[in-house]
Amino acid sequence: MDAAEFRKRGKEMVDYIADYLEKIEKRQVFPDVEPGYLRPLIPDCAPQDPESFEDVFKDIEKIIMPGVTHWHSPYFFAYFPAASSFPALLADMLCGGIGCVGFSWAASPACTELETVMLDWLGKMINLPEEFLAGKDGQGGGVIQGSASEATLISLLAARTKTIRRVQLEKPELTEADIMGRLVAYASDQFCATLGTTPCCSFDKLLELGPICNKENIWMHIDAAYAGSAFICPEFRHLLNGVEFADSFNFNPHKWLLVNFDCSAMWVKKRSDLTGAFKLEPLYLQHHHQESGNFINKLDYYYFHWQIPLGRRFRSLKLWFVLRMYGVTGLQEHIRKHVRLSHQFEHLVLQDERFEICAEVVLGLVCFRLKGSNELNKALLKSINEAKKIHLVPCHLRETFVLRFAICSRTVESTHIKFAWQHISQLATALLKTWEEL
Amino acid sequence: MDAAEFRKRGKEMVDYIADYLEKIEKRQVFPDVEPGYLRPLIPDCAPQDPESFEDVFKDIEKIIMPGVTHWHSPYFFAYFPAASSFPALLADMLCGGIGCVGFSWAASPACTELETVMLDWLGKMINLPEEFLAGKDGQGGGVIQGSASEATLISLLAARTKTIRRVQLEKPELTEADIMGRLVAYASDQFCATLGTTPCCSFDKLLELGPICNKENIWMHIDAAYAGSAFICPEFRHLLNGVEFADSFNFNPHKWLLVNFDCSAMWVKKRSDLTGAFKLEPLYLQHHHQESGNFINKLDYYYFHWQIPLGRRFRSLKLWFVLRMYGVTGLQEHIRKHVRLSHQFEHLVLQDERFEICAEVVLGLVCFRLKGSNELNKALLKSINEAKKIHLVPCHLRETFVLRFAICSRTVESTHIKFAWQHISQLATALLKTWEEL
Repeated sequence: MDAAEFRKRGKEMVDYIADYLEKIEKRQVFPDVEPGYLRPLIPDCAPQDPESFEDVFKDIEKIIMPGVTHWHSPYFFAYFPAASSFPALLADMLCGGIGCVGFSWAASPACTELETVMLDWLGKMINLPEEFLAGKDGQGGGVIQGSASEATLISLLAARTKTIRRVQLEKPELTEADIMGRLVAYASDQFCATLGTTPCCSFDKLLELGPICNKENIWMHIDAAYAGSAFICPEFRHLLNGVEFADSFNFNPHKWLLVNFDCSAMWVKKRSDLTGAFKLEPLYLQHHHQESGNFINKLDYYYFHWQIPLGRRFRSLKLWFVLRMYGVTGLQEHIRKHVRLSHQFEHLVLQDERFEICAEVVLGLVCFRLKGSNELNKALLKSINEAKKIHLVPCHLRETFVLRFAICSRTVESTHIKFAWQHISQLATALLKTWEEL
Repeated sequence: MDAAEFRKRGKEMVDYIADYLEKIEKRQVFPDVEPGYLRPLIPDCAPQDPESFEDVFKDIEKIIMPGVTHWHSPYFFAYFPAASSFPALLADMLCGGIGCVGFSWAASPACTELETVMLDWLGKMINLPEEFLAGKDGQGGGVIQGSASEATLISLLAARTKTIRRVQLEKPELTEADIMGRLVAYASDQFCATLGTTPCCSFDKLLELGPICNKENIWMHIDAAYAGSAFICPEFRHLLNGVEFADSFNFNPHKWLLVNFDCSAMWVKKRSDLTGAFKLEPLYLQHHHQESGNFINKLDYYYFHWQIPLGRRFRSLKLWFVLRMYGVTGLQEHIRKHVRLSHQFEHLVLQDERFEICAEVVLGLVCFRLKGSNELNKALLKSINEAKKIHLVPCHLRETFVLRFAICSRTVESTHIKFAWQHISQLATALLKTWEEL
């Protein structure tokens, strides 16, 4: 395919995506396929000779779409939102077109520098303490990771390296293995200090945990993967109080800030804690600016020192496009709409005395259940997901089986919430009737 | 931005990308900016109110492009290639549009299933032993990782878990920490067993290493990040002989197989070695099919058990589009063209007795230098990169400073190679003159 054909096909693809997202409501949110459906539909091996774009394109509706769970359907209330917006899609197209691999400053200066500044923008939007920002001469700074899991792993490895070095200074007779065997990571069953846990969006008490960590010289990492986006609204910012005690913090704009996956924003107070743990300098990655003592060397802005992979895409373009084309107010509106809709659903649940709310509704997640046994609630979830009008997933809160209703789609409105509740309520009525008969 | 505006802007972006790639040759391959150039060009914080697409779009040429290293310029000979092709760009657009997060089968069945089948296609293309394929009931299989570093880390963690469990069975009195402190990872200075090292594209002798690893029960991971793509050509497949001894293998189609970053293909002989190390099953990620003992459960195809992140994009679409629209023959042509061009450059170097070739030219990389001191060659590289007509990076082969000439761009032709050589040769003449005068 040459550039001329790409112009034609690219525009067809733009229309296909616009059609898909505009009419997504008409598709069944969860697919009908059974495990293993795809293999029999396509050949055993790659074709020897090229196929045409038309051949491939027509297989999208034939082979792919029947097996897609439509995360952006307004009837999708499962997991947490996967962010998506048109500005982010445009930025990702540009990212692909430029196609640079920005592991170091020289590998594409714009890629490194825009990321640094965008993470400062984002940090300011959630009023992160200045120590976490790079600014012109700060010791902190931000980086885009692929996922919150990677941010947590990076923090854990940096904390381990830092602690081992400290202990080795105090007790040089100990080997690294001796020390490693005695290190302790404190965690709840959600792992590190968490703001907005996945099962029920609960919040750890940073103002209690933080001072203890600081006093005992324990690295404190805070994961606010889902909830973090809400902190751009002043009325939710108090949930982040205590972040000043942390060494590292991250949240996922790719969950709730309209930036398509993958974009997990992570900040540290001391960049040297990361670069100290991961530094790697083969000659082919060095550049003469390194020796000049300017920006690069001073700020250690070789992002491959901040992450597990060496390569990295130009992901900050997505942040740049989204933050500018929505503006802070546009993004705040998005968050507030989702929170409003979750309270609407909560209200509907509370009006029905057969049901109960199982955890405080703080942001866009409602945990609810029928008053009664776990088995009853499992049966309710089964009937909801088998009807495939809406899609939910469950969680356990201690021993209790609970249904999670997460406000997900960018385009979900009050009418979808009402529909979802009526549907759940009707299924519950039918279920309770059968249940009583048994 | 609504769908109607996305249709318009998306098409403008398609044209912008087509223009950029069609005329990339006219742009200076390496930018003129100095470190820190970008921050003064943009505001200190995100705008409160939305900006228009036009505002953002005009800043691409004004703010971003002046700081881009053009990896797809036919004058870019640095690092290794970053794959790019129009079919892959189209697939990535679709991936963004669907926007699913495919961590489990239920999260989007097509995402999991296409990946499994595409990795089988790709494995067959390089004639990987059948044990590495998933097939309909194999114990092996492939997965797309973000980078070769992640594949290596995953292998290391899986190997560690497997070894600890084995030793614990033999010596139950030992703690995990006792065992961990005594584990040994054997590596060269390129880490694991490598086919096509970054500095000079050398090859470890798998047929010697493999039997020792198998005999001593050592996990063998092979990294062929760059070279792996060449194995689709029968004349290069012999370089992979010995892979049958390995436990895990990976290469990066995002380097040399025209699939845009990120797409690092990894295979294991026993999926249970990975899922055993990383298994995680909170209720909200489970699905009723799990209990049915069919495809899902049997094949452990919850890809988040295979990787560090939980979330994952629909990356196999890129493989599907590229493998079909190029066909095996089209991709073989691409590899063969690059290898032919590297031999053309090698030939030009060999005809000039001031220069020497520093490592056997096997695939698309030529390591060369002026006969003389490291300082002389550092000065040559400096004059090449300061002229900014072409872009190269160096490496150390033992103590020797060497210039790397990597065939990178999809559109590079014989004329670009001739131009590059003439340019290097002229700069060398000028340099040697000054050098002699000193």
